[in-house]
Amino acid sequence: MSDTPLPQGATIGILGGGQLGRMLSVAASRLGFKTHIFEPGAAPPAGQVAHRVTTALYEDDAALTAFAHGVDVITYEFENIPTSALDTLSALRPIRPGREALRVSQDRLTEKDFLSDLGLAVAPYADIPNAAALAAALGRIGTPAILKTRRFGYDGKGQARIMTPDEADAALADMAGAPAILEGFVDFTHEVSVIAARGLTGEVACFDPGQNVHEGGILRTTTVPADLTSAQRQDAVLLAGRILTALDYVGVMGVELFVTKAGLIVNEIAPRVHNSGHWTQNGCAIDQFEQHIRAVAGWPLGDGSRYADVVMENLIGADMDRVPALSQERDLALHLYGKAEVKPGRKMGHVNRIIRP
Amino acid sequence: MSDTPLPQGATIGILGGGQLGRMLSVAASRLGFKTHIFEPGAAPPAGQVAHRVTTALYEDDAALTAFAHGVDVITYEFENIPTSALDTLSALRPIRPGREALRVSQDRLTEKDFLSDLGLAVAPYADIPNAAALAAALGRIGTPAILKTRRFGYDGKGQARIMTPDEADAALADMAGAPAILEGFVDFTHEVSVIAARGLTGEVACFDPGQNVHEGGILRTTTVPADLTSAQRQDAVLLAGRILTALDYVGVMGVELFVTKAGLIVNEIAPRVHNSGHWTQNGCAIDQFEQHIRAVAGWPLGDGSRYADVVMENLIGADMDRVPALSQERDLALHLYGKAEVKPGRKMGHVNRIIRP
Repeated sequence: MSDTPLPQGATIGILGGGQLGRMLSVAASRLGFKTHIFEPGAAPPAGQVAHRVTTALYEDDAALTAFAHGVDVITYEFENIPTSALDTLSALRPIRPGREALRVSQDRLTEKDFLSDLGLAVAPYADIPNAAALAAALGRIGTPAILKTRRFGYDGKGQARIMTPDEADAALADMAGAPAILEGFVDFTHEVSVIAARGLTGEVACFDPGQNVHEGGILRTTTVPADLTSAQRQDAVLLAGRILTALDYVGVMGVELFVTKAGLIVNEIAPRVHNSGHWTQNGCAIDQFEQHIRAVAGWPLGDGSRYADVVMENLIGADMDRVPALSQERDLALHLYGKAEVKPGRKMGHVNRIIRP
Repeated sequence: MSDTPLPQGATIGILGGGQLGRMLSVAASRLGFKTHIFEPGAAPPAGQVAHRVTTALYEDDAALTAFAHGVDVITYEFENIPTSALDTLSALRPIRPGREALRVSQDRLTEKDFLSDLGLAVAPYADIPNAAALAAALGRIGTPAILKTRRFGYDGKGQARIMTPDEADAALADMAGAPAILEGFVDFTHEVSVIAARGLTGEVACFDPGQNVHEGGILRTTTVPADLTSAQRQDAVLLAGRILTALDYVGVMGVELFVTKAGLIVNEIAPRVHNSGHWTQNGCAIDQFEQHIRAVAGWPLGDGSRYADVVMENLIGADMDRVPALSQERDLALHLYGKAEVKPGRKMGHVNRIIRP
């Protein structure tokens, strides 16, 4: 049954109960699927709109097994799932996207090697097992540069900038002994991302690239259409297609790109729906969440056509105070995540502004 | 607290667990609310995307009381809620839209009287308590005419056409002793509906009227924009506003109108989100479901602006066989209801087709 489209009423298991799992759950419901969320934390946002929730640790083999038996296919909202959990789950049900995508994207060094081997341009980088390697890499790559933990980094966490070589020791200390990678700075004009999808039968469909603005390491806005030439737009789609096909990927992937005078440079990939694709909820008949569900359910992909220009803005921490005013703006769609507690830097929701011609 | 906007994390109770409750639940989640569904039937479609579900009869006073205590405000997806249940619930929590709207719309005769008293044009009608009244009414109104039960009719059920006077007895027998109303036929060119909303502080916002096509008494398609002159469009909005204000209404109402050479005639009103408003999910930043949730939560209404032309088509019964083909159409949004069993005449889902200029 794993290669035939999931029928109405089938259940999709989702690892992770945050806002991405929540929006995946809503999209699954539009296609007539039920969802079952697996999440260690209590009262996950996704649980408010899911058919079932399992609250258990990724180390709880019995809970994982019961979860797998209760679903038809398994997907996830985040890439840092422990390998032991994946071993248990993948023996029982298909996991989509597959393990190769997780293996590659869970480690920044592996990911950079993978992208380089595909012939794609990436920032200069070096494996940093120790201080000597860092000194050597800084000699080769120069400053400014950025030291990052190889694993478990997101939204600017686990990163240290090195503006001059004498900051090297402090940056390495910030890694707290974790394996690290040094990345050189790229002289880019702006960042865009491609939300790309690949179906079970190998077809690829990309949404229009969006242009991203970050603040403090966290995505602030995504604007479509992005400022790209027609050639750059095609390059972006073609390189995303190469990445997905090389991984025999099934699902939606976020591919972040730096736009430079010399061409597009791949910043990073995320094997899941992506914050920079939230605009699709109000610009396309089929959004990134439904596209992902279609792929993992073995359905045909939607074509990803865009019928409106959109600016997506994240609501972070105290931005929630703006909700009463935002709720009165014309052509503005609110998407709040139902998180109980507002914290600084916490993604609480986003808005999509429709831009009329 | 009943007059202040509901805060993030509040719970909205919804009576009825069908597709309307389901889409209300999803819309509530976008605003950061949880939902609790009350539904007698097992495994309701809305339960798949709700935080909690109570499965109990409307005669179960203890279940109604526990439900009310667990929610902040109560709304509903259908108008035929037993009065005793409303008595129990309204003593504990606000019910929006309020009881006057239910009282009026639960009885076709009361509704027609209410609309007439407002000075709005309706089809000729007469109360039919018995055969003598039917004969007299047919003498006055003429044929063809249509006999309808005063209560509990929907989707063409509880109706009998009378094409010639000799069909009167058979039609009355179809009513099975239920109180009935006779309605004269209206010579209309087409039917439109206005999805109108009124907020807790009295503001009114209407979506663009949609043009409806029925088949066998069931809505088949709704198209926006509707074929209306600018004056008709204004009339439609103004008369909807009068209805809502007269009822001190809070929430979304569907107002069905016949378009005739002599002007607009009110066919019927539904004190809830309405099938003919499903197009708003893909044509507006704020759809009818969110608009309803905003109203019952005491939030400001959205402005209802439309940014795309849409044709909504219902998927009824065996239409579900078309889903694989439909899922591959460009600019087509699927909305399936997660109903376990396909039955003839059963609404299983709908699609919204974006119409590009």
